Amino acid sequence: MYLYLIRHGIAEDPDFLIPNLIASDEIRTLTKLGRKNFTQVAHKFQKLELTFDLIITSPLVRARQTAEILIDNQLSSQLELSSDLKPGGNLSAWLTDWNARPPNTAISRLALVGHEPTLSEWAELLVFGKVCHKLILKKGGTIGLKFLDRQIGIEMAQLHCVIPPKYLS
Amino acid sequence: MYLYLIRHGIAEDPDFLIPNLIASDEIRTLTKLGRKNFTQVAHKFQKLELTFDLIITSPLVRARQTAEILIDNQLSSQLELSSDLKPGGNLSAWLTDWNARPPNTAISRLALVGHEPTLSEWAELLVFGKVCHKLILKKGGTIGLKFLDRQIGIEMAQLHCVIPPKYLS
Repeated sequence: MYLYLIRHGIAEDPDFLIPNLIASDEIRTLTKLGRKNFTQVAHKFQKLELTFDLIITSPLVRARQTAEILIDNQLSSQLELSSDLKPGGNLSAWLTDWNARPPNTAISRLALVGHEPTLSEWAELLVFGKVCHKLILKKGGTIGLKFLDRQIGIEMAQLHCVIPPKYLS
Repeated sequence: MYLYLIRHGIAEDPDFLIPNLIASDEIRTLTKLGRKNFTQVAHKFQKLELTFDLIITSPLVRARQTAEILIDNQLSSQLELSSDLKPGGNLSAWLTDWNARPPNTAISRLALVGHEPTLSEWAELLVFGKVCHKLILKKGGTIGLKFLDRQIGIEMAQLHCVIPPKYLS
């Protein structure tokens, strides 16, 4: 079982958000450059035949748009939203949800699209069992984890790859 | 300061070594496929303008040949050998040697070419302070570490990238 943690592409600057509008961070969109760069990443995934049986994304617009670029480039046909993937989302809550699903042997490559520092913290928990803030995950970057069987759990993964987006251009 | 730990390319199978010849592991050469694949990696490094101020390699033939592919592709003009980079080499011994050198501000991108599991163990020590055997470093793959200043030491690095060679083709 492979789990790919993908950070959203370059998005609008938070400094330009409408003051006092709480929801404004949620509606930040990818910039033109963010779309272009992440489309290059999607093309590289295509070339490598790295497809996903399911993509689960944070519901925030910049993450959803990133996931949709993967869908638009035929890297998956299945897209779900999970509020656990919002910034600061709790890994244990997501694991509880995930492990409560009926076992599905058709899913061996799962992608989660979200935010930092949440995704790299999740990766550290899944690999090392604790958060060390030692992994660098750039916008549009991917962390790949390998699990020896179908179960996803804390300290059960090996770190298969950490790919800054420039290596995927 | 960036430190890149690069595993040698695909080499001759150890099963074909001459029995009872102790030195035979030391003289295993890269296969034709190993040379071809790692030359692609070198070309990708060129495209990314990822050059090295110094490359230090294990003296074993398959590592030296890998390092020479980087040199032949103008990715560095400086090549040294270190027996600390042999399989099972001791990180503390290498750090003692490295830190005994006169400070050289011209070196901000250093590559070490060597073997597994030694390189991924060194990476775990430099990032997390202990060996967990959780990093996967394939033949021809690269681990990139970032140090906040010029000193290289245990638990002082961030993990910048882990790149399987297929992502560099």
